[in-house]
Amino acid sequence: MTVDLPPMDVATRLVRLVETFDDLGCDALVVSHLTNVRYLTGFTGSAALLLVTHGGTLFVTDGRYRDRSAEELAAAGVDAEIRIVAAEPDAVVAEAAAAAGARRIALEAAHVSWSAQRRWAGELVGDLDLIPADGAVERLRLLKDAGEVARIRAACAIADAALGNVRPQLLERPTESAFAAALDAEMRALGAADVSFETIVAAGPNGAKPHHTPSDRVIVEGDLVVIDFGALVDGYHSDMTRTVAVGEVGEERMRMLDVVLEAQAAGVSAVHAGVDAAVVDQACRQVIDDAGWGEAFLHSTGHGVGLDIHEEPRVGARSTATLDADQVVTVEPGVYLSGLGGVRIEDTVLVVEGGCDRLTLAPKDPILA
Amino acid sequence: MTVDLPPMDVATRLVRLVETFDDLGCDALVVSHLTNVRYLTGFTGSAALLLVTHGGTLFVTDGRYRDRSAEELAAAGVDAEIRIVAAEPDAVVAEAAAAAGARRIALEAAHVSWSAQRRWAGELVGDLDLIPADGAVERLRLLKDAGEVARIRAACAIADAALGNVRPQLLERPTESAFAAALDAEMRALGAADVSFETIVAAGPNGAKPHHTPSDRVIVEGDLVVIDFGALVDGYHSDMTRTVAVGEVGEERMRMLDVVLEAQAAGVSAVHAGVDAAVVDQACRQVIDDAGWGEAFLHSTGHGVGLDIHEEPRVGARSTATLDADQVVTVEPGVYLSGLGGVRIEDTVLVVEGGCDRLTLAPKDPILA
Repeated sequence: MTVDLPPMDVATRLVRLVETFDDLGCDALVVSHLTNVRYLTGFTGSAALLLVTHGGTLFVTDGRYRDRSAEELAAAGVDAEIRIVAAEPDAVVAEAAAAAGARRIALEAAHVSWSAQRRWAGELVGDLDLIPADGAVERLRLLKDAGEVARIRAACAIADAALGNVRPQLLERPTESAFAAALDAEMRALGAADVSFETIVAAGPNGAKPHHTPSDRVIVEGDLVVIDFGALVDGYHSDMTRTVAVGEVGEERMRMLDVVLEAQAAGVSAVHAGVDAAVVDQACRQVIDDAGWGEAFLHSTGHGVGLDIHEEPRVGARSTATLDADQVVTVEPGVYLSGLGGVRIEDTVLVVEGGCDRLTLAPKDPILA
Repeated sequence: MTVDLPPMDVATRLVRLVETFDDLGCDALVVSHLTNVRYLTGFTGSAALLLVTHGGTLFVTDGRYRDRSAEELAAAGVDAEIRIVAAEPDAVVAEAAAAAGARRIALEAAHVSWSAQRRWAGELVGDLDLIPADGAVERLRLLKDAGEVARIRAACAIADAALGNVRPQLLERPTESAFAAALDAEMRALGAADVSFETIVAAGPNGAKPHHTPSDRVIVEGDLVVIDFGALVDGYHSDMTRTVAVGEVGEERMRMLDVVLEAQAAGVSAVHAGVDAAVVDQACRQVIDDAGWGEAFLHSTGHGVGLDIHEEPRVGARSTATLDADQVVTVEPGVYLSGLGGVRIEDTVLVVEGGCDRLTLAPKDPILA
């Protein structure tokens, strides 16, 4: 799958990050969040610390990643000194920051634990200033380059195809977890590196739980089945929800499907470069409110998708974000009625000038052929 | 799989946690780490905050978990007030703590971000004291009750059986990732809720990377194949590594296998209630040092296993922990030689008086029949 994906522009990310140092009020940034380390360097391991300064970048990891770090940073064309340490990488980074003449060291405040910050403040930075930096790398990650979009699009295409292939099995009375396992296996067979997150299959009354974990409940005639899942391609996620009606589900449930389908379409139509995220949320919410189910729309409308399955920008009533071109977000309204079940419809879309490019294309027809 | 697992003693955990408040120097603890929330309440969702005071427990989550939180806390026999909030659960918790008369509010410092702590200190706690608590819940989690051990044992049994079933496929020249996918699917088919972590299959030179991600490299005659994987059962992990020799691998690689097998056996023999974790590490390291490969043992010897795949106690040269009965740890020495490949052998064991109970039982014979 990932073989013919276009390259990502990893090497320039560190350059653009350093350009934000004045706004951050720092002359060195310690990147500890592994997703951000991956974004900046291409490193996919589970342990690394990055020191970014005007003078250059120091990449610190341990012996488990001796070979892999060298290979991955080289493959990404990243210019950084790699140091392998057996212990206390933070102390190594602090020392290097001081040696580099840094006076104001920023930490990723949203990711560094209070314990880690106390160690920095107490033992590591000495007389240097410790500065909380929030979202420094996340702001760069907001806008996806062509290589990133291609990976998300590929992940969405795998999810589309996988659902199409296994959807007929819903008629064979599988358990929620058996259907989830079949869907997961199909995504892997189609080239996904992994699933994007724990697949949600919520049938009948379980559908009233937006984040239900697949159970041994058998999917039967009359069930609405909420299927929320995604594929992972080269670190990038997809996110899609479809709700299927198994056989005759009755008037009320059909109305739930109609209302959520209309709300979701309204949300997608509201997406374009320059729109406030809160406006997209309102577009979905209005339809559901008008149907009298405002209270049953239990969550916000969407979120960004990229190296994280949930990332900025958030799309909700309280969102202050404005959507820009090259951002990727979900639009996923839902209605959840205890006892009766739930409906959620979700697409992952690429924000463009004047609208959006829908990346998840599986049919939304709820009727199981 | 999980149907006939014995119950866990969840309800008493909150009681035992409150008994540690004097040592923590607090009269209220905010539990934000979801694994710890699950341990204390049985809640398996992705968003919750717990306020634990002498007067009782407040469980705060959002609408997505309205039904599930009620069901799971009741099933676990946990006595807590559940509150569903649309936003700012931390503010709700802070208010409740003040209302409960708490003066010293502890946060999980190892899990709360610096950003979150700054919000607590700046807006939330008012004139109350904010106290960093490290490992408050983790200390309880160190000792596994019978229900927890049964789940880890079941996860280990699934991993044992899965490897036995798919191991012959190594002779069919699969790619690393195809073999990993087959192993993952087999664990799911045998009843695992999920895999325990991203399965490692590292063949030939890739074996020199302890945490190699399965690639499209075809597994061929002459390869050592490091297989590190686990199953998940009701939230509990297993962790096992076996290294297989595909066909003729030559003298040096066979010697690597012999040395690591001997080192791993020495480590397992060293485990018993009351032993220092560092002594177990040294038992493995000594054998590898004597073989002249000390530098090629790139990581520590092991770690605790439970609700997290990596948890306390750590088993390494710098460990200060003493192993106690009812703890579950791994013993996993390895040797990694660039170009030549790697060998790692790992068991998950239950610490008991006078020794340990090995939970991973797959044969270690490296020769592929």
